[in-house]
Amino acid sequence: MNHFVFIYLGNFLMFPKTLSGHENPVCLVLQWLLEKPLFVKGNTDGAVARESTERNCSLTPPYLPSTAVNTSLQLEELRVQMRAMNISAYIIPATDAHLSEYIAPRDARLAFMTGFTGSAGTAVVTLNKAALWTDSRYWVQAERQMDCNWELEKDVSISSVAEWLISEVPKGDEIGFDPFLFSLKTQGDYNINLDSSDRSLKSITENLVDKVWKERPSVPPDNLTRLPDRVIQRTWQEKVEHIRTQMGDNPYKPTGLLLSALDETAWLFNMRGNDIPYNPFFYSYTLLTMDEIWLFLHVERVTEELKVYLNASCEGALCVQLKGYDTILDHLKNYVTRPGVKVWIGTEYTNYALYEVITPQDKLLTSSYSPVLTTKAVKDETEQQILRDAHVRDAIVVIQFLMWLEKTVPEGNATELTAAEYVDKCRSKQKDSRGPSFATISASGPNAALAHYSPTKETNRRLTVDEMYLVDSGGQYLDGTTDITRTVHWGKPTEMQKEAFTRVLMGNIEISRTIFPSGTRGVNMEMLGRRALWEVGLNYGHGTGHGVGNYFGVHEWPVGFQSNNIGFRAGMFTSIEPGYYKENDFGIRIEDVAVVVPVQTKYGNNYLTFDTVSLVPYDRKLIDMSLLSSEQLHWLNKYYETIRSLVGAELDNQGLHEEKDWMLRNTEPFAEIGSSASVSSSSLTLIALAVAMLHNIV
Amino acid sequence: MNHFVFIYLGNFLMFPKTLSGHENPVCLVLQWLLEKPLFVKGNTDGAVARESTERNCSLTPPYLPSTAVNTSLQLEELRVQMRAMNISAYIIPATDAHLSEYIAPRDARLAFMTGFTGSAGTAVVTLNKAALWTDSRYWVQAERQMDCNWELEKDVSISSVAEWLISEVPKGDEIGFDPFLFSLKTQGDYNINLDSSDRSLKSITENLVDKVWKERPSVPPDNLTRLPDRVIQRTWQEKVEHIRTQMGDNPYKPTGLLLSALDETAWLFNMRGNDIPYNPFFYSYTLLTMDEIWLFLHVERVTEELKVYLNASCEGALCVQLKGYDTILDHLKNYVTRPGVKVWIGTEYTNYALYEVITPQDKLLTSSYSPVLTTKAVKDETEQQILRDAHVRDAIVVIQFLMWLEKTVPEGNATELTAAEYVDKCRSKQKDSRGPSFATISASGPNAALAHYSPTKETNRRLTVDEMYLVDSGGQYLDGTTDITRTVHWGKPTEMQKEAFTRVLMGNIEISRTIFPSGTRGVNMEMLGRRALWEVGLNYGHGTGHGVGNYFGVHEWPVGFQSNNIGFRAGMFTSIEPGYYKENDFGIRIEDVAVVVPVQTKYGNNYLTFDTVSLVPYDRKLIDMSLLSSEQLHWLNKYYETIRSLVGAELDNQGLHEEKDWMLRNTEPFAEIGSSASVSSSSLTLIALAVAMLHNIV
Repeated sequence: MNHFVFIYLGNFLMFPKTLSGHENPVCLVLQWLLEKPLFVKGNTDGAVARESTERNCSLTPPYLPSTAVNTSLQLEELRVQMRAMNISAYIIPATDAHLSEYIAPRDARLAFMTGFTGSAGTAVVTLNKAALWTDSRYWVQAERQMDCNWELEKDVSISSVAEWLISEVPKGDEIGFDPFLFSLKTQGDYNINLDSSDRSLKSITENLVDKVWKERPSVPPDNLTRLPDRVIQRTWQEKVEHIRTQMGDNPYKPTGLLLSALDETAWLFNMRGNDIPYNPFFYSYTLLTMDEIWLFLHVERVTEELKVYLNASCEGALCVQLKGYDTILDHLKNYVTRPGVKVWIGTEYTNYALYEVITPQDKLLTSSYSPVLTTKAVKDETEQQILRDAHVRDAIVVIQFLMWLEKTVPEGNATELTAAEYVDKCRSKQKDSRGPSFATISASGPNAALAHYSPTKETNRRLTVDEMYLVDSGGQYLDGTTDITRTVHWGKPTEMQKEAFTRVLMGNIEISRTIFPSGTRGVNMEMLGRRALWEVGLNYGHGTGHGVGNYFGVHEWPVGFQSNNIGFRAGMFTSIEPGYYKENDFGIRIEDVAVVVPVQTKYGNNYLTFDTVSLVPYDRKLIDMSLLSSEQLHWLNKYYETIRSLVGAELDNQGLHEEKDWMLRNTEPFAEIGSSASVSSSSLTLIALAVAMLHNIV
Repeated sequence: MNHFVFIYLGNFLMFPKTLSGHENPVCLVLQWLLEKPLFVKGNTDGAVARESTERNCSLTPPYLPSTAVNTSLQLEELRVQMRAMNISAYIIPATDAHLSEYIAPRDARLAFMTGFTGSAGTAVVTLNKAALWTDSRYWVQAERQMDCNWELEKDVSISSVAEWLISEVPKGDEIGFDPFLFSLKTQGDYNINLDSSDRSLKSITENLVDKVWKERPSVPPDNLTRLPDRVIQRTWQEKVEHIRTQMGDNPYKPTGLLLSALDETAWLFNMRGNDIPYNPFFYSYTLLTMDEIWLFLHVERVTEELKVYLNASCEGALCVQLKGYDTILDHLKNYVTRPGVKVWIGTEYTNYALYEVITPQDKLLTSSYSPVLTTKAVKDETEQQILRDAHVRDAIVVIQFLMWLEKTVPEGNATELTAAEYVDKCRSKQKDSRGPSFATISASGPNAALAHYSPTKETNRRLTVDEMYLVDSGGQYLDGTTDITRTVHWGKPTEMQKEAFTRVLMGNIEISRTIFPSGTRGVNMEMLGRRALWEVGLNYGHGTGHGVGNYFGVHEWPVGFQSNNIGFRAGMFTSIEPGYYKENDFGIRIEDVAVVVPVQTKYGNNYLTFDTVSLVPYDRKLIDMSLLSSEQLHWLNKYYETIRSLVGAELDNQGLHEEKDWMLRNTEPFAEIGSSASVSSSSLTLIALAVAMLHNIV
């Protein structure tokens, strides 16, 4: 799944305020979708289109579609709180206290206040105005969901928000914000932009929206769980010791390490929860010192068995002292008063509330990512093996799905939504399945050209043999997280579709087969995914890959091809996902997950390459073989051999004979002759020449 | 020339203090080299090796080689100055007030104080100690040139200098520095590292070294010159208007633009000088506002004719008001006091002295590079054409040189130094020659494995048919600056040498032929220069290319493949220079200059590629054709066609018949059959099969 797509998915992760937080979030998404009004055009599968689905605040009285949410009450109540705090404006971001990509319903404050359920945005409320900033993907949605209390602002830069604040807030007044929802960088950016304007920020640790959000979903009561021994290699005690070694080796001699990202604590203790849709995380912080461990969570969710597991009844170096989730700030303040302490934080995931109490400066040590995130990025042998295993089972899911589509689409009964349901159902039947790792992207024809698309009843298209189809889906398994995209055509693709598909595939292969020194950064190699497209003037507007976890986030930082990702080391897993999108026509993405592995070279040591662990064949009909180089062809044949061996065995194991035949048909080796067009033509000329000579002589 | 090499070259740009600044710096280098003691080993061309060329301060009395400089007097006098300023330490960097890469003799303060003439280093003097920080390339040199007043420190990070300062300077004391010699970043880094240590920096605008440097070379008295009309397209008035338009378009509405880098002022006014060796620059600053122009320079060097040219007798928007070079600070302070002004600076080239007077914050506007540098990066049509022309003449120089070596080396009379002299002499004979653009790197066998090598009498090797030879040289011409590297072998290269050379060549070609969207950054493409090497576990430890100027610096920022370079646009010129260095054995670098040009693609607009303007064939003997892909081969043949056409015509023009024969022999087209090894072998198998069938049937 690519990053733009990801951002959009958040759309389905925020819920109308009438829903409580106790239900399965995935079911909630579906339920909510079913309740949404229909809006249909073109080949969409549904009833008649309605008009005026967007608000019109310039009419008297204003026109509001039925999708708009009346926010007068919550605004009025928030302003009461603001007056009590003596602030003239209040900033409401879209994230949670752990700066998570996905958030839980109880953190959907932006949606509660504005009605707008898109994942990206910032709201600002003054005593007489309210405005939402969101990017172009969401403008239509915002116009449908917001009432006329809200202005929509389209320049999402912090300087634009600041400019608006300066125009609306009187000189000398204060602008409130919840420091738990701001990263260091966000706070810094606001500060710079408000600098010398005579308006200042006021950090208010009690969230004002929460005070007026009466039906705010509560924290899920579900017990937390520990991973079974069969999926772990390192006990939490070993991990703690390993991290402490890194603390001891650090020249700045930190005495404590503060963990804020939800997967940091979950990883350290080999635990999981169910608080965030699609992500097996639980609300938590950890403060790890050289001789104590404080784990901040909702203690009532920790069973007696888990307490034993965590050695929670003592205070030694390997005892986990359980503390209430909400006590982190006081505890940290307290710790910082101790003489000689220095707290290490990763700046990318620590919120401003925790950062600002670590004073003076010499009690603070920062790096972009905590040593837990950089350690976790390199999977141990067990993690590598089980993540590979999960991908073998996941390949069977996608093969079942593609085979089903081949049969069903020509009959005319499949739609984007039924297809998404089918692939999710296939996944749920595999061993250790824990549901999808994100909302399946099932996109036909022009819908696939929106890189951030997910089907809704409004946009749902019937699948036909005349359109390309893109499916980007993934699963959570107890042993791993998967994420794969395939693009197919059941009829006759155009030459341009074939060329674009082949060049996307060439990009995927060029990254996958490249050999590079350990530590090379993805951002310096990702152009290999674009180069074959660039050659003919094509490109794509999203990133080229992201880390994936072991039953963790489907976007696992800091691995990947973005500029803030760290260098590749053996044992890291990343997606590789070039694409091409032709507006109002079709979309192509080919996404595989690969593990970084050592490779033997002729002269040097410490070189790496990728080994693809997603094991599903590409649509043969869409490959123009004359474009592939001999090296690309060779790579493809080796890849298909691996699919036959690994997936073949598992298909046998699961007794899926028809699927095995399908897989074998689709992984037939390609003839390895010729490379790029110019070469094969010159080689063919020579062969033709030889053959011609033969005939003449005969 | 690559960047590591560049840094080393500075070695020859700093002179013993006994030399005055009035002489031709290139001659001075040679003169200085002749005076240096001999130190010979292996195949070097000279007398017997001497022992103990490095100081030994642990003996009593200390052993000092004859190359060591007695610095007791200057240290004593500097400390007098320091006591008068009430500072406990003084920091002496290696750069000048324009943060230049190359410096003039009068700015060689580090060399004057320490005796050490390497280009990279920082010295710190306290009231009873003195230390020099320099990197590994210079440790031996520093041990030869410094006396026992100086400690040598090997960790060159600012944090290491700061740590030393904290250990040597009493709490509460101040550390002096010349803010003209510090960039914003350097000052910031010292500040961060001294933060909370209770030692603080003190900015002292009068340089204390200058106060004790009695024989400090003066500013060259040479008159400044303007470029002739035939090499310019835009008058200075047009350039000024164009920059003012950019100032007006800037949303932060700057009222003034401060130009600090020496090539900024020289470019704006189409003027040149002779103050820095190898660089046609002159000491200058410019403050450009919407309605005034102040040019700060040594006014006595401006002729009456130039004053007319600059319209220097008025004060209007297109009048250049000439001000003394040393008045910039006062003038800037004065300007900043005006109400409503905002001064735009490029942070990469503005020194801290100027930066610190632009207060408060809202009078300052920063970008990494000034609009002059980013505008200058894109050459206009005339600049492009004359820079191409200069490269045609320069190709003749290198062809003459390579032909001469082919004859001379087997006779046993050529050395690295005589070869360097020869190529410099050839250049001096070409039209519009203005001398070399840097000290020629002429390196045989193991010497070429040091990427920063330049020959000296000590290290000079005789050239033989048994060793590879690398020559990296360039010229200043009135119409352009050139920089080219070729690596050759006159005997029988090893398989490994051929493979490494071929893979370096493949890297050069892969960058040169790649197609990319306008604005793509070099850092995101430079791995193409390494990929063929990586494939077999080889690599190189320097950058892959840098901008070049029109009769300007041979390293022209901000163009190139480094992380702080800007995205490529049509009309930029960059070097492309992958390499490979085998320690104690040989070194390979293949460097060409290329211009970024628009390219027509099948589907998209606004795509670019490179057009190589260095026009000298590669050593055929070193190319393993079986490794090249068909695309690489095709590129090579097209390149050779271009050489034949452009250089052939100029060779005819200059009546160089023997050279033309040599060029034609060395640009014979390669047979375009087969691509990579695997393809050609499979094609050949098929052909063999067809031929075998033929024979059987016959």
